[in-house]
Amino acid sequence: MTTKGKASPYLRNCWYVAGWAREVQRLHMFRRILLGEPVVLYRKGDGTPVALEDRCMHRHAPLSHGRLQGDNIECAYHGLVFDPDGACIKIPSQDTIPPNACVRSYPVAEKHRWVWIWMGDPAKADESLIPDFHWMDHEGFAWRGETLHVEGNYMLVVENLMDLSHLPSLHLTTLADTAVPENEEFPVTFETKGNDIHINRWVRDVPPPPYFRLLGDFKKGDRVDRWMDSHFTPPSFVRIDIGACPAGSGQLDGDRTGVQTAMNLNAVTPETATSAHYFWAQAQNFSEGDESISEVDFRLVHDAFQEDLSIIRGQQENIDLSPDAPRLNLAADKGGLQATRMVEKLVREEQEAG
Amino acid sequence: MTTKGKASPYLRNCWYVAGWAREVQRLHMFRRILLGEPVVLYRKGDGTPVALEDRCMHRHAPLSHGRLQGDNIECAYHGLVFDPDGACIKIPSQDTIPPNACVRSYPVAEKHRWVWIWMGDPAKADESLIPDFHWMDHEGFAWRGETLHVEGNYMLVVENLMDLSHLPSLHLTTLADTAVPENEEFPVTFETKGNDIHINRWVRDVPPPPYFRLLGDFKKGDRVDRWMDSHFTPPSFVRIDIGACPAGSGQLDGDRTGVQTAMNLNAVTPETATSAHYFWAQAQNFSEGDESISEVDFRLVHDAFQEDLSIIRGQQENIDLSPDAPRLNLAADKGGLQATRMVEKLVREEQEAG
Amino acid sequence: MTTKGKASPYLRNCWYVAGWAREVQRLHMFRRILLGEPVVLYRKGDGTPVALEDRCMHRHAPLSHGRLQGDNIECAYHGLVFDPDGACIKIPSQDTIPPNACVRSYPVAEKHRWVWIWMGDPAKADESLIPDFHWMDHEGFAWRGETLHVEGNYMLVVENLMDLSHLPSLHLTTLADTAVPENEEFPVTFETKGNDIHINRWVRDVPPPPYFRLLGDFKKGDRVDRWMDSHFTPPSFVRIDIGACPAGSGQLDGDRTGVQTAMNLNAVTPETATSAHYFWAQAQNFSEGDESISEVDFRLVHDAFQEDLSIIRGQQENIDLSPDAPRLNLAADKGGLQATRMVEKLVREEQEAG
Repeated sequence: MTTKGKASPYLRNCWYVAGWAREVQRLHMFRRILLGEPVVLYRKGDGTPVALEDRCMHRHAPLSHGRLQGDNIECAYHGLVFDPDGACIKIPSQDTIPPNACVRSYPVAEKHRWVWIWMGDPAKADESLIPDFHWMDHEGFAWRGETLHVEGNYMLVVENLMDLSHLPSLHLTTLADTAVPENEEFPVTFETKGNDIHINRWVRDVPPPPYFRLLGDFKKGDRVDRWMDSHFTPPSFVRIDIGACPAGSGQLDGDRTGVQTAMNLNAVTPETATSAHYFWAQAQNFSEGDESISEVDFRLVHDAFQEDLSIIRGQQENIDLSPDAPRLNLAADKGGLQATRMVEKLVREEQEAG
Repeated sequence: MTTKGKASPYLRNCWYVAGWAREVQRLHMFRRILLGEPVVLYRKGDGTPVALEDRCMHRHAPLSHGRLQGDNIECAYHGLVFDPDGACIKIPSQDTIPPNACVRSYPVAEKHRWVWIWMGDPAKADESLIPDFHWMDHEGFAWRGETLHVEGNYMLVVENLMDLSHLPSLHLTTLADTAVPENEEFPVTFETKGNDIHINRWVRDVPPPPYFRLLGDFKKGDRVDRWMDSHFTPPSFVRIDIGACPAGSGQLDGDRTGVQTAMNLNAVTPETATSAHYFWAQAQNFSEGDESISEVDFRLVHDAFQEDLSIIRGQQENIDLSPDAPRLNLAADKGGLQATRMVEKLVREEQEAG
Repeated sequence: MTTKGKASPYLRNCWYVAGWAREVQRLHMFRRILLGEPVVLYRKGDGTPVALEDRCMHRHAPLSHGRLQGDNIECAYHGLVFDPDGACIKIPSQDTIPPNACVRSYPVAEKHRWVWIWMGDPAKADESLIPDFHWMDHEGFAWRGETLHVEGNYMLVVENLMDLSHLPSLHLTTLADTAVPENEEFPVTFETKGNDIHINRWVRDVPPPPYFRLLGDFKKGDRVDRWMDSHFTPPSFVRIDIGACPAGSGQLDGDRTGVQTAMNLNAVTPETATSAHYFWAQAQNFSEGDESISEVDFRLVHDAFQEDLSIIRGQQENIDLSPDAPRLNLAADKGGLQATRMVEKLVREEQEAG
């Protein structure tokens, strides 16, 4: 297996989303640049997903131009055949196969509707480290998701998701009222458990905002307890729980069964230094089989994310013009900064270790 | 205010044209890259133009994506509000505003139909330094102008305008006959007053060329005195006076009232190292309310400038292929070389001073 | 003449194909980037082709924007006139012509339907060094050729042509059966004569493959001797002789008159480090005036080359992502590696020599 000598700007010993489970198919191999590396994705006959370096070690042709032969992939150029472990098992033009004839095979896992890839040391790939996105697998939740292409560094998306103070301004007509206003009684809390960062926003006994009256069961005149909880897992996973329950019944960090919750689920995988694959879904436990509710919930967030993508493209343009221009951090950046520093620390530690 | 540490290749302590006065409007903010920096342009309620750094100091979002609030601009991303001086006056997510929360505000001035911007030390911005383009404001002159986008370094345009020996070859069907032929009696003179370079071409008692017979009052068989005077003001302003009067009445550097003069007015603002915004107009004192004369005069030059833009794009392509290829200067390059050297000297002095 | 100070990555003291003879015309000058340099091509009145540096030494305007004046070329910008030797013979704006007023004139030759250019030391240009492509000039052969644009380094094409082990996999439906299978009796031989590399594949007494049954005179049930001989001449010329004759009559390296031979003729000229002009033709001696045979032979190879171009674009994409990724060489790469090393050696020698 080839391992790059050059220091990567990315955390490598972690799981990233490589694609939707529905995208990775038996017969339709496809190429995707992940962390600046070409990867080809397909499935074995038993359904197991496979991720190989999309570059034949012979003449660097993309294997994705080739053909599947059972579970193996045949390079289009000279017919070299690779098994799903990346080992070259056939060279048509010669009988012996050099021992270093292989492409990198990445550990993969299929969980929560996504195919995950581990681009670091394969010995450290542990499926229990896959971040929790069980809401896409939970019968109590309906969901819909998509892939967006980001014309900006992936951490610009993480910062966006970790600082929801942008909701009232950027998403005035879509998500503004999902934001939980600052209040003295229940200030925003930041808590770090291991590498996870948890930001909790909470408010009691307030009217239900239009978002919940539109999609949930609350009516004008009702009073609710509300929250907006964000969980960050390095390097780029953010789950946001937006919920409400009848006033007085809300339990901070307690049992939320029966409450009305929409989960905004986000996984951002770097493509290059200035672009990213953004996999996200919206799941909610209050649609009760009414697909129009899932659809409207998804569409509201989808529209808001278009606004985010436009801003991020603008940020990246400005960064490209003046890469060293300073930034001024505000109090609301605390979550984004914690996330950024944690990723930087983990990358540093990983590079010093290896 | 942010000031770049890196040496700029551009003269900064001078006025540049940022746009046409008619472009800069109350409600339609727009972004323009000037000297490699993003700038947003709009007008206050009292009509005063405003130019701010188009990059929020918080997360580098372009302010031009935002909204006007009276005279202030609200960033689309987190709702930070900036006044026309670039000071941040509101941060929705917090009560206190850090003292360094600001974007750069550029001194601007509106004069001669253009909005001017000063991208250097604001303390040195002096409106009396704005180059004279009064012909667009003078009731004796009709004019028409436009903006061209140059796919080449801005100095390629300056060189083009300072060496009119290209008229007979490049502009054979448009402006060739506006050129004043070399003559021994009145050789071309070069004169530098302060930073201005004045090139005077003059000839007496010759037939009026087709240009003046077409647009002016002269007829075949008449005899005229003619001139073509170019004035250069650093870094990139060129005014060319193309005129004629009845033979014997011309006064070199004297009163030109009553003569037939077309003023070609040029202001070139660098966008990047290989592109520029080219603002220009054609004004003439002989159209006497006949719009077709202004139109034909503008159109002749417009067509000629398309030929220039095509050549400049070709020059830039060749420069990009071989940036260090030597050039051979000719006698006719004297004006262009003087201009280039003056700009280089001023940039050097500015950088040594600050 | 301008000579670059910077070391070129290309062999310069050799002939390259600049274009098809039919492309280089009297009145339609055209610009082509060769070895990273702009070149303008046209013909004199007597039909002789001319190749000049497509960059006026005055202000770097492309001469190809200009006009032909008899055998001379007039720069569009300031009207400077250059003769076919690159000497400036007129400067409209002045009487004297500086002695170094010239553009580079490249030695050219017209041979075998191509116009050849020598981009190194003109004193070394010797037409006898032009590689042999006489089949396009030979009355016994019909031929058809074209130009392809390669989105990859030119040596990727050379490698492709020097390792025909890719035929069965990449060109399964087109050229696969033209490959001569490995056999113990007549192993592939590699022979270097001077700078030419000759790879000989030979097999006796086998059935004629579909390619020869389709295009030639052989029938099912016949037995033939077959060969596939490749000749490489640095830096990027490959001629491949694909032939067959009645079993028992084949002479290895002997007289092949009367046998059925298709010549695949290839000349690749670098454009930039990541692109090339690919001139190629297919000639065959068995069409006997039947144009449909020439057409099908050309079309089969044309279709196969589209597959090559797609792979080469993929290779270049992968190389751009990881320029330092290692390659694993196989036995079949022997020819390509010999060619690559010979070019590298010749470039090194040329640069050490001066």
